Amino acid sequence: MSSSPYANSAPTNALVTPLLTDLYQITMAYAYWKVGRHTEEATFDLFFRKNPFKGEFTVFAGLEEVLFFVNAFKFTKSDVDYIRDVLPPSTEPGFFDWLLSLDCSNVKIYALKEGTIAFPRIPVLRIEGHLGITQLLETGLLNLLNYASLVATNATRFIKAAGKDKILFEFGLRRAQGPDGGISASRYSYMAGFHGTSNVLAGKLFGIPIKGTHAHAFVQAHRSLDDVKQTMLDGVDFKALTLKYRAKMQAENTNDGELAAFISYALAFPQAFLALVDTYETLSSGIPNFLAVALALHELGYKPNGIRLDSGDLAYLSKEARRQFTEAANTFGIPEFAKLTIVASNDINEAVLNSLNEQGHEIDSFGIGTHLVTCQAQPALGMVYKLVEISGQARIKLSQEPSKVTIPGRKQAFRLVGANGSPILDLMMRCEEPNPSPNHRLLCRHAFDEMVRAYVTPSKVIPLHHLVWDGKNGGIQMTLPSMQEIRQYVANQIHVMRSDVMRPLNATPYKVSVSPDLYEFMHQLWAEEFPVRELN
Amino acid sequence: MSSSPYANSAPTNALVTPLLTDLYQITMAYAYWKVGRHTEEATFDLFFRKNPFKGEFTVFAGLEEVLFFVNAFKFTKSDVDYIRDVLPPSTEPGFFDWLLSLDCSNVKIYALKEGTIAFPRIPVLRIEGHLGITQLLETGLLNLLNYASLVATNATRFIKAAGKDKILFEFGLRRAQGPDGGISASRYSYMAGFHGTSNVLAGKLFGIPIKGTHAHAFVQAHRSLDDVKQTMLDGVDFKALTLKYRAKMQAENTNDGELAAFISYALAFPQAFLALVDTYETLSSGIPNFLAVALALHELGYKPNGIRLDSGDLAYLSKEARRQFTEAANTFGIPEFAKLTIVASNDINEAVLNSLNEQGHEIDSFGIGTHLVTCQAQPALGMVYKLVEISGQARIKLSQEPSKVTIPGRKQAFRLVGANGSPILDLMMRCEEPNPSPNHRLLCRHAFDEMVRAYVTPSKVIPLHHLVWDGKNGGIQMTLPSMQEIRQYVANQIHVMRSDVMRPLNATPYKVSVSPDLYEFMHQLWAEEFPVRELN
Repeated sequence: MSSSPYANSAPTNALVTPLLTDLYQITMAYAYWKVGRHTEEATFDLFFRKNPFKGEFTVFAGLEEVLFFVNAFKFTKSDVDYIRDVLPPSTEPGFFDWLLSLDCSNVKIYALKEGTIAFPRIPVLRIEGHLGITQLLETGLLNLLNYASLVATNATRFIKAAGKDKILFEFGLRRAQGPDGGISASRYSYMAGFHGTSNVLAGKLFGIPIKGTHAHAFVQAHRSLDDVKQTMLDGVDFKALTLKYRAKMQAENTNDGELAAFISYALAFPQAFLALVDTYETLSSGIPNFLAVALALHELGYKPNGIRLDSGDLAYLSKEARRQFTEAANTFGIPEFAKLTIVASNDINEAVLNSLNEQGHEIDSFGIGTHLVTCQAQPALGMVYKLVEISGQARIKLSQEPSKVTIPGRKQAFRLVGANGSPILDLMMRCEEPNPSPNHRLLCRHAFDEMVRAYVTPSKVIPLHHLVWDGKNGGIQMTLPSMQEIRQYVANQIHVMRSDVMRPLNATPYKVSVSPDLYEFMHQLWAEEFPVRELN
Repeated sequence: MSSSPYANSAPTNALVTPLLTDLYQITMAYAYWKVGRHTEEATFDLFFRKNPFKGEFTVFAGLEEVLFFVNAFKFTKSDVDYIRDVLPPSTEPGFFDWLLSLDCSNVKIYALKEGTIAFPRIPVLRIEGHLGITQLLETGLLNLLNYASLVATNATRFIKAAGKDKILFEFGLRRAQGPDGGISASRYSYMAGFHGTSNVLAGKLFGIPIKGTHAHAFVQAHRSLDDVKQTMLDGVDFKALTLKYRAKMQAENTNDGELAAFISYALAFPQAFLALVDTYETLSSGIPNFLAVALALHELGYKPNGIRLDSGDLAYLSKEARRQFTEAANTFGIPEFAKLTIVASNDINEAVLNSLNEQGHEIDSFGIGTHLVTCQAQPALGMVYKLVEISGQARIKLSQEPSKVTIPGRKQAFRLVGANGSPILDLMMRCEEPNPSPNHRLLCRHAFDEMVRAYVTPSKVIPLHHLVWDGKNGGIQMTLPSMQEIRQYVANQIHVMRSDVMRPLNATPYKVSVSPDLYEFMHQLWAEEFPVRELN
């Protein structure tokens, strides 16, 4: 995926090792190994039961990281020495030799394509292989997929809430839950359709466009016009030229330190001048100061960029800013000044975006931090990893709540698309069943609700699961798509998916169904495992 | 801090580099460098304005990571090549040479001790040094401190809510926001008083006790008693012995697969048998199966550990489990069976703990995941980094909201302790002022509220800020405390701090005050920067 020439194909995070796991995976592996069951063939499904953010969809992300993790899966001697120290002294030494020899050569992984819009219960990964190693993969896979998918989903919701043609940047590194929380937020929000990030390392690693101008501290570091230490631009006294425009605008009472900061910044970046205007008084100082500098830049042939608002009533301030820009455009005969960019960036979440849309505003671009990167509305996605088959025998995990019962056995899934190009539903079948074909009528059933079923005649059938890892056959089974390809894939799906499914609030659940064969298989196993009770 | 022999003193996260920053830090640095201001002396305060989780305290954490970051701060050639690509072509080449030469040798950092219970507005770090480098440190410092302090604070709240003598484990790796989110959660919840983690890598890196037994998948992997592949323990047929006890308990209708799993697990770990009992029916299968195995282990001289509950009504199930344990203790004459450990671990948060306490329960130990590690109740702490002095001149950041006005100038802080050993308040003073001394009466003022002030005669004065980094003088200025030392330090403070401040709900705000000198200084500067308006 890495489209940056600075990136390499190795995992960027040295913490992503086989030790990034829960101890019980290792104790279970020992219990299996001790009785020789570690090489039994097992299948696990990795899936979620509920979409995040009270929505009805999830953007599946994190697959490339998973593949690097699986590819590099190898305990070091130091890892195994540590495990030996931690387990009881009675642990048989052969177990540690086995751990040292372990890798993912006996594993196959089937997965959704990265960026697939995914729904509850459809496995995002199906993991097949020896019981020991597949059990040991659980925690790492969940850790890598849960947050990646959560933040990608969150990003699509922000894009939707901001509305058409708005430009969104991820600005959350300082509030992220750790360094890789920040990096992942940049990576997966860009994947989901954001336009860039402030995060320089993410830019370098993944070729994401990076953005940024200056902070309040830069304005505060200028106390007066004397703090403009260099005044010439292209042979012209730029400070004097700016002051001339400030006088023309009759705005001499603006804050001089702020104006000095803007002049200094424009001298450093004349071709990319965007000013943070709310350090003192946004309307009576920040915007006039910005315009004075912008007019001076314009006289010298530069195209000023715009302003950033970071506090206050963003709807009102943006409209007033636009009014001042339009006035300057008219007064000075520079029509493009009416279209100067307005960026807003203060604690923005979906509710703020919705409220701005209701009030009307003139913001072109949003910088979104805390709420995006920490997923404040719901900071965890609950993907789980469940055993569905062992030694050829399907397993079902029971629960008093039907929603927690797992769907047993090795399954494949298909997206059935209607004549209008929009997906109708996802269908899970047993791997043994023949694939559905277009223009053939199929019965699709709810997995639990006996009477919920429908005939579907799809115009197109999209297989959802692809073999992405085959340890016996070269490892990674695909050319990893570029970041741009995944962005396009996400955008295309959002375009064709029914809008009532994608809507942020009170969305319609997308149908996830099972074939009649799988339904029968599952319910029979359920009945066997959950025998009729004897009441005395 | 690392007390594990496997740890080394290098940062464990390769992502923690100078590029882990927002682009605007680099553009600002260029604007300073271009006019030769990058070597002006600047002071930044790093602080928070509001305690998290609607509480009235914060546990400051992340200092060791900060020191490693600062110590290793050096752009690589590849980093600088990337920055050159991203900045406009007109950027002067000398800037990139400067970046390449940059390190923290011109920086001093004063900080609270790691683990200090901290309050709003008291700088947790004061950073002094050249303007260019100190500006470039901002994002990295905030990223490393915000989440560390947040999760440490969260952990102390869970410990308080669980109540005296409860044992708490962090189990959240799979739901954490990325690999280092998981590692940090383990590290800082242990620092704050948790007893261990399931996270093996955190155990290795930081010497944290690690815990774990088995998952539902292990139970599901056993279908019948034939799945016990090895039956002998210490020369005895352990399976037969277990079945004998099951028969004695008249519990033959328990799930055989589950019993097989428990036997297998006990054969692997006879000295550490703890069983997950809720895969099928907790009361009629899981607990009797556990007891059958536990009785067999006891007969062979082993001491079984207990059970884990991961679903259902934890208060009720734990009480019923205790009842069955007590019954077995009486029936079989093994008094210690009444005290078998009950661990609970399903989606536990502060509210659940409070509710369990209200209902009464028999849980000894909690495994806490999602809510702890993602800090679901408030997933971000809002630490900020503000310029307070430049070239010897104090700077104030104004705002329409007084709570957002910064306290200007270089400041030191002290904790004033009363005769009973409990802290009375924290006092900020200008660095130029003499330190307060014990048994001398001092006027302490609210920073903003003119009439809120008090005389304090402290019995003890604890200086809060310590020089932790001096780039000109060997770098790190301290022997880093061990994890155990920090744990003890946190515990000691919690012990002496007024309980109304530490209480989870409706706590009393702890007083943070300024000296009269600082008050005057600040308000005078404020008035200068915010001149009386002219109304026409």
